[in-house]
Amino acid sequence: MFESAELPQKMDKKTFKKLEPEIRENLLSAQLEMIEKKEFSTIIVVDGLDGAGKGESVARLYEWMDARHLVCNAYSDPLEAARLRPRLWRYWRDLSAKGETAIVFGSWYQRILRDRVFGKIDDQDVEHELDRIRRFEEMLALEGVLLFKFWYVLPKKKQEKRLQKIGKKKNKARHVLADWAALKNYDKATTLGEKIILETSRGHAPRFVIPSQDPEYRDAAVGQTVARSMRLKLDEGASAAVSAPPVVIGLSRQSAVDAIDLTAKLDKDDYEKQRDKLQARLSDLTDHKGFSKTGMVLVFQGNDAAGKGGAIRRVIRPMDPRIYKVYPISAPTDEEKARPYLWRFWRRLPRQGQVAIFDRSWYERVLVERVEGFASHEDWLRAYNEINEFERELTGFGFMVCKFWLAISAEEQLRRFKAREETAYKQHKITDEDWRNRLKWDQYAIAAGDMVDRTSTPYAPWTLISSENKRYARIEVLKTICDQLEKRL
Amino acid sequence: MFESAELPQKMDKKTFKKLEPEIRENLLSAQLEMIEKKEFSTIIVVDGLDGAGKGESVARLYEWMDARHLVCNAYSDPLEAARLRPRLWRYWRDLSAKGETAIVFGSWYQRILRDRVFGKIDDQDVEHELDRIRRFEEMLALEGVLLFKFWYVLPKKKQEKRLQKIGKKKNKARHVLADWAALKNYDKATTLGEKIILETSRGHAPRFVIPSQDPEYRDAAVGQTVARSMRLKLDEGASAAVSAPPVVIGLSRQSAVDAIDLTAKLDKDDYEKQRDKLQARLSDLTDHKGFSKTGMVLVFQGNDAAGKGGAIRRVIRPMDPRIYKVYPISAPTDEEKARPYLWRFWRRLPRQGQVAIFDRSWYERVLVERVEGFASHEDWLRAYNEINEFERELTGFGFMVCKFWLAISAEEQLRRFKAREETAYKQHKITDEDWRNRLKWDQYAIAAGDMVDRTSTPYAPWTLISSENKRYARIEVLKTICDQLEKRL
Repeated sequence: MFESAELPQKMDKKTFKKLEPEIRENLLSAQLEMIEKKEFSTIIVVDGLDGAGKGESVARLYEWMDARHLVCNAYSDPLEAARLRPRLWRYWRDLSAKGETAIVFGSWYQRILRDRVFGKIDDQDVEHELDRIRRFEEMLALEGVLLFKFWYVLPKKKQEKRLQKIGKKKNKARHVLADWAALKNYDKATTLGEKIILETSRGHAPRFVIPSQDPEYRDAAVGQTVARSMRLKLDEGASAAVSAPPVVIGLSRQSAVDAIDLTAKLDKDDYEKQRDKLQARLSDLTDHKGFSKTGMVLVFQGNDAAGKGGAIRRVIRPMDPRIYKVYPISAPTDEEKARPYLWRFWRRLPRQGQVAIFDRSWYERVLVERVEGFASHEDWLRAYNEINEFERELTGFGFMVCKFWLAISAEEQLRRFKAREETAYKQHKITDEDWRNRLKWDQYAIAAGDMVDRTSTPYAPWTLISSENKRYARIEVLKTICDQLEKRL
Repeated sequence: MFESAELPQKMDKKTFKKLEPEIRENLLSAQLEMIEKKEFSTIIVVDGLDGAGKGESVARLYEWMDARHLVCNAYSDPLEAARLRPRLWRYWRDLSAKGETAIVFGSWYQRILRDRVFGKIDDQDVEHELDRIRRFEEMLALEGVLLFKFWYVLPKKKQEKRLQKIGKKKNKARHVLADWAALKNYDKATTLGEKIILETSRGHAPRFVIPSQDPEYRDAAVGQTVARSMRLKLDEGASAAVSAPPVVIGLSRQSAVDAIDLTAKLDKDDYEKQRDKLQARLSDLTDHKGFSKTGMVLVFQGNDAAGKGGAIRRVIRPMDPRIYKVYPISAPTDEEKARPYLWRFWRRLPRQGQVAIFDRSWYERVLVERVEGFASHEDWLRAYNEINEFERELTGFGFMVCKFWLAISAEEQLRRFKAREETAYKQHKITDEDWRNRLKWDQYAIAAGDMVDRTSTPYAPWTLISSENKRYARIEVLKTICDQLEKRL
């Protein structure tokens, strides 16, 4: 889920300087209106990696906003007065009044992170704590508090560099020096962070992941997000709380989908050799007696004409036709429309020992339905969580869930569209709708990027594959399935 | 929390006959409108004790409603097709279409109950399952499904009788015969049921506890609740889902508060002897070195002039003044109004080794604020859950929470009011407001009954005490505190 955030998202200083007055104006006007109306208070929770510049970034907020109505509460190990009282007491004590904004460092999430990483508590304890947190945050939201949470992300190497650099400055950032221990636990902390974000980012208490490699990009993202969240709450009242915004709003960014390297290639001989080997392996694996105790759900999404169908055909070729079903997903039927969204996929679930292959899937909700407006804003926003829960049910039961995004460039798509029109037996594959969708290339790209960021989970990660060269894509698909399956059997 | 439901709630056959056409009319008109509009489906979950007449009661619904759009799905041990798929699959498979109503026997709660009672799963597993259920039900609600849940309650002795009676009928109710095992586990199942209800009754998926000793009362309660829930959803749309209704709506019932025996008395000699003994005990207990590791929160509520102040004075007399604080709670200050409701109580929390005594408390929200309309319908309804969570935080940290309801009759109150007016040094204790509140005696009684039903939890139960004779009440209060404290040290 940190796929896009760990890319080197950048904003050059000139762009930042140009954008700054606008961000500042948006922030200040929203804050002043909030102060005047006194209808709600704002709580901004700041978590994330040490060395990511959380402090600097909040310092910038102070510059931009009316500092008299902004208070920063930092918590580390509880003092005695807090130790002698229930754990949430110190956060309650400092709750800000309506009209005021509080920034929380060392939030209710920190202790969980720290204690789990250092082995003081176990996974069950974490679940239990997250449950308490969910209830606490729900209560705050129902009491009208505008609550949102930042998570500052740095790739491992960058964190190391940053800490070294800070370490050299004398008398500076002592708290960072103390946190070299954190670097050693980078992987643990990141995995746990992912879990925490997944399970506690809710419409009424959304989590925004902030890419922090570039200070300008980072601060612009934070400023923009604060301004927009306040504005939404001011203009739409309580209902605004329902809409969980994308991971980073208001700033163009390169997504993990945009960053797919499209130059990968495979020549025909190589392809055929590898294909035959992989197909034989897949045949063996699905024949394995352990396979009857698991199940496989394969999801294919991608740009139009990216070659989903062709890839699927190479996957099913070596398998016993009695164990798989391919489901092409288009518009829902009347019966499906009359029921909760995911019903159409639950009814197509394989049983143990079987394979369900979805050519397009539940992800259409956050792709075509989002872009074309078939689903309301609220509906596609909550779909991310629901999809994550759905896949958790599947993997929790023991199913393997593989999700593929097949990517091509706009130019390659154009070539393929034209080829389809010119080839008689391919003409059914190209419609006016395809051409219409093509006009919204950028919107679809944003939707795909958000989708990967928000639904790539430890238990059901996305595999992003260049399909500019179809042979390469097909081999990657087969390889991923075989590798995953082998791990499991 | 089954306090009122286990009282012999009754409705004579004549009243029932008179009420029946109205219930039927309400039910049918709501159902028909729902069928015509096709905007949502309804799911009614039926759980509770065996022998409570769940089947009979649903049969009556069939009589009253349009049976063509009502389907009853009963689940027991999953068949093979379901065993080979994720656990929720069979419930998904049977989800009803918009306009339709489904009644679910053997719901997603049954397996948890059964497995826990028979020791197949542990407490952690239960938490985990409840978490999944909460997410599932939240998703259904967000998809527009009208979901509510019944829990049929019988006192232990009645269940035994009922099962015996059914057992005698040949060829009847075989499923009941099989459930004699359940009776043996009555206490376990009831405690677990209480926990499940507490943690999963939410505004969008409320649980209604149905007293089932009297079939007429039971069926009228069920019919009324179904009709009202549908009507609310039809008239107020999604927003209706926010309001968690009282445990039983639409029918007058005797509450646990109404049922307090007011005849209890104590003569002066007895009183003084017992008081001195208990106060000495309390003094010892709060001096005990173990006391510094716990904390005590005492809550006093009751009818006006019930003698809360007097009882509190007897409690603090033997204690070291440095360890306790008494907080009389009246209207919130401006600072308090600017923050979430419970802030005013968090800020008054004792630390370990201390005692906080609340003369009126957070319960005012569901008493005076409810009756006088100071809190909105939504606000006081969600307060029950928030209060339960709050007290769970306190007891989870190791604090002891004792809650007292001091009850007097309306006549006794009148006597005391008059006496206050006539006694110079007591005149400050009686205001116009007291007289005004008195006019709403019945509404306050209903609010108090709901409060006890919905906030008497295993970790912080209510103690209901007659204060018609003040001496009796004071002794009961002291005794309860001492007993509870002794258990803990």
